Amino acid sequence: MGMTMTQKILAKHAGLEQVEVGQLIEAKLDMVLGNDITTPVAITEFEKAGFTQVFNKDKITIVLDHYTPCKDIKSAQLCKQAREFAHKHQITNFFDVGQMGVEHALLPEKGLCAPGEIIVGADSHTCTYGALGAFSTGIGSTDMAAAMATGLLWFKVPSAIKVTLKGKLQPHVSGKDVILHLIGTIGVDGALYQSLEFTGEGVSSLTMDDRFTISNMAIEAGGKNGIFPVDERTMEYINGRVNRPCEAFCADSDAVYEREVVIDLDQLEPTVAMPHLPENTKVVSEVAGLPIDQVVIGSCTNGRIQDLRIVAAIMKGKKVAANVRCVVIPATQEIILQAMKEGLIETFIQAGAAVSTPTCGPCLGGHMGVMAEGERTVSTTNRNFVGRMGHVTSEVILASPAVAAASAIAGCVADPRK
Amino acid sequence: MGMTMTQKILAKHAGLEQVEVGQLIEAKLDMVLGNDITTPVAITEFEKAGFTQVFNKDKITIVLDHYTPCKDIKSAQLCKQAREFAHKHQITNFFDVGQMGVEHALLPEKGLCAPGEIIVGADSHTCTYGALGAFSTGIGSTDMAAAMATGLLWFKVPSAIKVTLKGKLQPHVSGKDVILHLIGTIGVDGALYQSLEFTGEGVSSLTMDDRFTISNMAIEAGGKNGIFPVDERTMEYINGRVNRPCEAFCADSDAVYEREVVIDLDQLEPTVAMPHLPENTKVVSEVAGLPIDQVVIGSCTNGRIQDLRIVAAIMKGKKVAANVRCVVIPATQEIILQAMKEGLIETFIQAGAAVSTPTCGPCLGGHMGVMAEGERTVSTTNRNFVGRMGHVTSEVILASPAVAAASAIAGCVADPRK
Repeated sequence: MGMTMTQKILAKHAGLEQVEVGQLIEAKLDMVLGNDITTPVAITEFEKAGFTQVFNKDKITIVLDHYTPCKDIKSAQLCKQAREFAHKHQITNFFDVGQMGVEHALLPEKGLCAPGEIIVGADSHTCTYGALGAFSTGIGSTDMAAAMATGLLWFKVPSAIKVTLKGKLQPHVSGKDVILHLIGTIGVDGALYQSLEFTGEGVSSLTMDDRFTISNMAIEAGGKNGIFPVDERTMEYINGRVNRPCEAFCADSDAVYEREVVIDLDQLEPTVAMPHLPENTKVVSEVAGLPIDQVVIGSCTNGRIQDLRIVAAIMKGKKVAANVRCVVIPATQEIILQAMKEGLIETFIQAGAAVSTPTCGPCLGGHMGVMAEGERTVSTTNRNFVGRMGHVTSEVILASPAVAAASAIAGCVADPRK
Repeated sequence: MGMTMTQKILAKHAGLEQVEVGQLIEAKLDMVLGNDITTPVAITEFEKAGFTQVFNKDKITIVLDHYTPCKDIKSAQLCKQAREFAHKHQITNFFDVGQMGVEHALLPEKGLCAPGEIIVGADSHTCTYGALGAFSTGIGSTDMAAAMATGLLWFKVPSAIKVTLKGKLQPHVSGKDVILHLIGTIGVDGALYQSLEFTGEGVSSLTMDDRFTISNMAIEAGGKNGIFPVDERTMEYINGRVNRPCEAFCADSDAVYEREVVIDLDQLEPTVAMPHLPENTKVVSEVAGLPIDQVVIGSCTNGRIQDLRIVAAIMKGKKVAANVRCVVIPATQEIILQAMKEGLIETFIQAGAAVSTPTCGPCLGGHMGVMAEGERTVSTTNRNFVGRMGHVTSEVILASPAVAAASAIAGCVADPRK
């Protein structure tokens, strides 16, 4: 029976010819990831279980990206624990303050994930690397402990939803609008423990940054992963970053999907997700004019160079509205350097935005942009649950970089096409 | 009887011809300053006292610079309170995230303090503006409440220490070494409720940024203020920033000083203050090689453009040592723009430093660089008390930008001359 991209990667890593939906398999891992919040928990479990060695010091990545540079003593203690573990086990890919970036932007950039590989991470947005044709998914910290020790994890083979993309995105519409539209269509549990398999002629027109954004939010539809086919753009992206053999898996023509969703990119409008679920989507024109207090641009979802270019094009020569504060967080040090070279950072600062060193902080209400009572943020991040970015009465509107930038300038939710 | 610079400014603002040491006077204020930590307390007191109006909306400055962009809900609530007050009273000089900088770098830059003026601030390092020949000093939040309402405060006229500067600073020696050396000489209570009046032919060779650093730390010797004579450099600095008449006060030739301290700038060496008091000074060569975990470059003491130029000259083409994390925090948005233009930010990031948006955070162990148990930071900030920058067992070594940069590269306390 035919297999999907995801099923083929799982079969290969389990040493099997064929896998079936629902089958439990044990797969070899190509990379195990943790951050400054999850790694300390994993280390404690690792040691409690009596493990003394990691399975492969080159196949573990630890990124101190959430509450760094440390905001308090507690976060500093967690970083210290992770740092000492990394040092003790000579973890090759340990990224401390100054070298680090938001993990899901950093790993692709550093070539630490590649087509056909399995990457697990103790962070739910680990599904990002599906953009490269990898199987990647979030795990708990206890699983991370076992994964660091053994290099193996069991998976239940997921069924799949085929997401067929047609046409081409219009100006001011990007990957974020695609994924918000999809989540709005199928709901936050629409892909529960399923793989979202993106396909269709529309894929080729999507940039890698669009694809990272789309795969990144697969989890917000409940998906186990979100995966793209490998094409010339993928190969161009990994060229010079990945120096090991890697394999592109194509779905079989008779692969079985639970359902198919077709998205016509031509018709897609700038889309936002209103509080308090990513599925509460509206086209932006329906909610334009809604007052806001803050705009956050960045995160593992939308802190990449394409995102910053979009924002700068809208902000150039304009000022952030007086009633709004705007925080721009390029996702990695490499992205900051590129953005400086292109004059984007200058544009942001001249517009009156604060430009932060890389951190995941504001997305989870933990650092660099937390909201007070009753405040509302338009954010390019990925979750708008109650209290996600601060006080329990604060609100998050998820949006693309274009919508976020237009809203920062307008001082309210705004349509970037106007 | 002759008066010092400080005494003349106080007399003028009290409408008196003459003041005497110890006399209680009531002086008119030219500027009242608060930040996101102290302003909310002042607002509460202001309202509790039944005040309904501020004395002058143009003569109050509120800067949200400590825990911003907000690190948690509590800090967001404080900022919200300050923001609402500023809005209600139409405070002209309210600086929110994106416009703000570290207050004591921001006010001079924006022309909000000038020679001959009295500036009070609910922040102990308000004494910084003495560099411009102003009388400026830190006050409590309750005093800030009264000052905002009335534009008046009482002062006890301070006696003075004459600090005579001779000669000229040698390469890799800067204002920070001057003030650390002075504090090491007279002790942390050496100038208790006295004004430090800097004078002598050595003054003219000091840049404005050197002078800001020196005045900034007057409080670390217990000083009420630290003041410089107004010269051509001062006038050049305020040109284009200050558009109101201002007055340069010179000490009378028969002014009375409690004591005189002479510092020979030619002989001054890079100086550090070891834990846990600013008076515990050593020349850096005595402690070179001591292991460190972190370097912090920035703050109201040393986050100005000259400081960043010094750091970049040392870091250029080099890498921050693997065992050290380095956080560089330009003090204002204008400084970031200038530093980008000169390629300094690029140098820092390429060296592996994290470059933060302006914040006072790490200096007081509250944001962007807090230390864990047993860690040690070389910092260009102003206080190295027990637990000041994090865990109670952590240590701070106060240093100049040159020593901090050299230490970041060496991975231990290092002499920039080597």
